[in-house]
Amino acid sequence: MSGKTEVTTPSDREIVSERTFDAPRERVWAAFTDPELIPQWWGPRKYKTVVDVMDVRPGGAWRFTHEGEDGEQHGFRGTYREVTPPERIVQTFEWEGMPGHVLVETATLEDLGEQTKVTTVSLFHTTEERDGMLHSGMESGMSESHERLDELFASQA
Amino acid sequence: MSGKTEVTTPSDREIVSERTFDAPRERVWAAFTDPELIPQWWGPRKYKTVVDVMDVRPGGAWRFTHEGEDGEQHGFRGTYREVTPPERIVQTFEWEGMPGHVLVETATLEDLGEQTKVTTVSLFHTTEERDGMLHSGMESGMSESHERLDELFASQA
Repeated sequence: MSGKTEVTTPSDREIVSERTFDAPRERVWAAFTDPELIPQWWGPRKYKTVVDVMDVRPGGAWRFTHEGEDGEQHGFRGTYREVTPPERIVQTFEWEGMPGHVLVETATLEDLGEQTKVTTVSLFHTTEERDGMLHSGMESGMSESHERLDELFASQA
Repeated sequence: MSGKTEVTTPSDREIVSERTFDAPRERVWAAFTDPELIPQWWGPRKYKTVVDVMDVRPGGAWRFTHEGEDGEQHGFRGTYREVTPPERIVQTFEWEGMPGHVLVETATLEDLGEQTKVTTVSLFHTTEERDGMLHSGMESGMSESHERLDELFASQA
């Protein structure tokens, strides 16, 4: 099933999202790892996403910022832990507005031929941090990013 | 009981250390939060510890380095999440040799009059990361740091 992001909480410290995209796996891998493509889909449309740092290799850092209409900057950062093209990326994620609250995201890209299924597991230190993320509107933000990915892949087809 | 560090693993993602020091709590708090005092006790004696960054407030960063006789630098870093003088510090901890593996350390200082009991809970994302830390010699390193703290407090008395 493409076109819908399914979000579940299979344990008390995880959020799992699953979404199938109408694009072959190499193209989905590029969308996740090419700094030229990130601003085209990462985050809500109302923000301008800027790639400040994106060193896609084990131990490499990443930092993206959102700039709203009021000019305020919101930073997000982390470290790539595993980079296994074209199937798996493990990275940390930290919103700079809540420094020191670090989660681990594991994205797995499953090759379905002309489609790709992306499963993302977000692992938190505590249930409280997991629930804080759920209540932050993360689910609708992720759905919007995924819609923008659909549009990116459609424009490339 | 002073003079011995007790290390336990009460859950599959935690390491807990308990140690009682012969010093009043204000002095123990100072040892943990004063950048002038950190190099006198933090880490094994064979390394020279340098405080690169130490911004002791919620959201503030810290970074210490060890320099061995070969001149090689080993970096450790994190973010202070809670700072509640003189009783509680919550901070993240990351060894730069394994970037993106971030644990949360909660140190609680219990006032016992002329003594202070320090309980440190280290919380990891996974059991594998916890066990990796246990096997890294962390326990003997921590005991050596605590011996050095004993010496620091004795010299201040």
